[in-house]
Amino acid sequence: MSAPAEAVLDAIETRRGAVNAALSTYLPVREPEHLYRASRHLLDAGGKRLRPAVTLMVAEALADSDRSDPDYRAFPPLEPDEEPIDMMAAAVSIETIQSFTLIHDDIMDEDDLRRGVPSVHRAYDTETAILAGDTLYAKAFEFMLETGAPAERTVQALSELARTCTRICEGQSLDVAFEGREDVTTDEYIGMVEQKTAVLYAAAARIPAVLLGANETTTDALCQYGLDIGRAFQIRDDVLDLTVPSEELGKQRGSDLVEGKRTAVTLHASEHGVDLDSLVEAETPAAVTEAEIDAAVAELDAAGSIEYARTLSRDLVESGKSHLEVLPDNEPRQLLAGVAEYLIERGY
Amino acid sequence: MSAPAEAVLDAIETRRGAVNAALSTYLPVREPEHLYRASRHLLDAGGKRLRPAVTLMVAEALADSDRSDPDYRAFPPLEPDEEPIDMMAAAVSIETIQSFTLIHDDIMDEDDLRRGVPSVHRAYDTETAILAGDTLYAKAFEFMLETGAPAERTVQALSELARTCTRICEGQSLDVAFEGREDVTTDEYIGMVEQKTAVLYAAAARIPAVLLGANETTTDALCQYGLDIGRAFQIRDDVLDLTVPSEELGKQRGSDLVEGKRTAVTLHASEHGVDLDSLVEAETPAAVTEAEIDAAVAELDAAGSIEYARTLSRDLVESGKSHLEVLPDNEPRQLLAGVAEYLIERGY
Repeated sequence: MSAPAEAVLDAIETRRGAVNAALSTYLPVREPEHLYRASRHLLDAGGKRLRPAVTLMVAEALADSDRSDPDYRAFPPLEPDEEPIDMMAAAVSIETIQSFTLIHDDIMDEDDLRRGVPSVHRAYDTETAILAGDTLYAKAFEFMLETGAPAERTVQALSELARTCTRICEGQSLDVAFEGREDVTTDEYIGMVEQKTAVLYAAAARIPAVLLGANETTTDALCQYGLDIGRAFQIRDDVLDLTVPSEELGKQRGSDLVEGKRTAVTLHASEHGVDLDSLVEAETPAAVTEAEIDAAVAELDAAGSIEYARTLSRDLVESGKSHLEVLPDNEPRQLLAGVAEYLIERGY
Repeated sequence: MSAPAEAVLDAIETRRGAVNAALSTYLPVREPEHLYRASRHLLDAGGKRLRPAVTLMVAEALADSDRSDPDYRAFPPLEPDEEPIDMMAAAVSIETIQSFTLIHDDIMDEDDLRRGVPSVHRAYDTETAILAGDTLYAKAFEFMLETGAPAERTVQALSELARTCTRICEGQSLDVAFEGREDVTTDEYIGMVEQKTAVLYAAAARIPAVLLGANETTTDALCQYGLDIGRAFQIRDDVLDLTVPSEELGKQRGSDLVEGKRTAVTLHASEHGVDLDSLVEAETPAAVTEAEIDAAVAELDAAGSIEYARTLSRDLVESGKSHLEVLPDNEPRQLLAGVAEYLIERGY
């Protein structure tokens, strides 16, 4: 059972506030200031902090903690004779990895805008952006070392974090390679999305369980929950790029189409006879008109491609929720089910 | 006492071969092949593997192992009841970090050549180079997790590695900032070199001691050894850029001068009345003539700046060697002293 949508939004918002406060402490602007300001640029620009919220909620569910305001820096351990664990350090670590990948991805994709502000390589320059990403990368590992969990579990969490970063790089490499290929299938695409996007949701859900000493059945199920909702999230993003007004998206609607990116929607359309090359004439997001996007969306809709992606993301969310049965039946577990639904119900 | 120069060269060469063999195993070209080929590009182009050689020699000195061909993957622990430690995993981790920083630095500095081959962003493209560096970054952490050392020590080693990466980024940021400043002092420069370059030598020397469970006096002294020889290495590089023929350097001699980089040589010259802006007229390494470089070097020499940098690097090497007294008086310790001397005696 999922918590009501309003309770889920409240819960995400509460944890977002806690994560933001922690980010200020963990990642202060110190010398060299230019580097740390650039490193914080996207973190300060906003973001829903969904991945660290998942980390915190998994910890709450396992510790059966339904306090509305738990002290995440002295989080109750599963065994009474253990030291408290700083779960916020793990949550901040996950968000820091996410921010590093956004900075480097924006350079690679030549994206000028992110969260409604200039991307780091536009607000600063490419050199600073590369270095800001590299700094956050190291900091994420530093933070994950600061949870105070027993050394064996910290080693496991670090191992998960490092392997996750490797897979994100592999996924991004596939994403770039797909842009030069005409014959990418939806299955290949979903595999790429798993590597590039879903593995960080999997780490966000699995690592708190590892740090708390949960058994392997539990950590594996949470990993699956993360993989499912992460894929659902990206496929939902593919739909939102076509259906949400530009001002709400924080970038031009339909920019995936203009840039010729493969998505769950366009790959389905291509497999069902739509000629992707003729969908949009404009070659840059700045040059495209709303009417052109509307016409393209109508054609994709007629091919059933938007409905296909919507159904796929909904199926993944249902699968993700089923893995939560390993957790105690408590409020945080209902919130995690609610987060899965939020990922595909959200407007942007 | 240092080992004879020839024995040091032999010892470096032996360990270079062992590290290269291990790199093939630890970092095979797997899917996505394009990404892993790019990640291996500079590693395959050569390199003396000095940092991993230091890691292996420190381990040998501490374990009092004077075998000419120790099995680094089942390295004898200090305590007889402990499991063997895969010290090669730590050595490969250090070299992998080094390779990641070279790839990203070459993008930032717009350097076209490295080790006599095109830099990764030239041989491939900037997107691939960013991603290849990011992949090696994650892999380095994976490798450091694979030594089989007790979890507490692995956590310490990882912590050292993460903090080292943060400091390298901070140092690189200072290096870039210095290019836009007219008033950089030699002291500031040496501080930057410590952050950007020396900390990885410090990690290379300290981490094997941490993994073997050496006491804090020993690990601290080895850290100081690394910081000293790392600074000596960079300052020696500043001299070699001016004095070694281009074909041996693998890039244009005097390119630091052409590019207006601050070095120990030029900062000393500037502090002693030399007008750096008038030293070289050419604006790119491709446009400069040997005669122009010769004239500039003569002027720097007359100001005593080359001798200053030579003396500074020699003093640092002497200081570095003094810290080796914490080690047993054995052959590997003499090799470590010899590596320190090699760093400033080498021709390129």
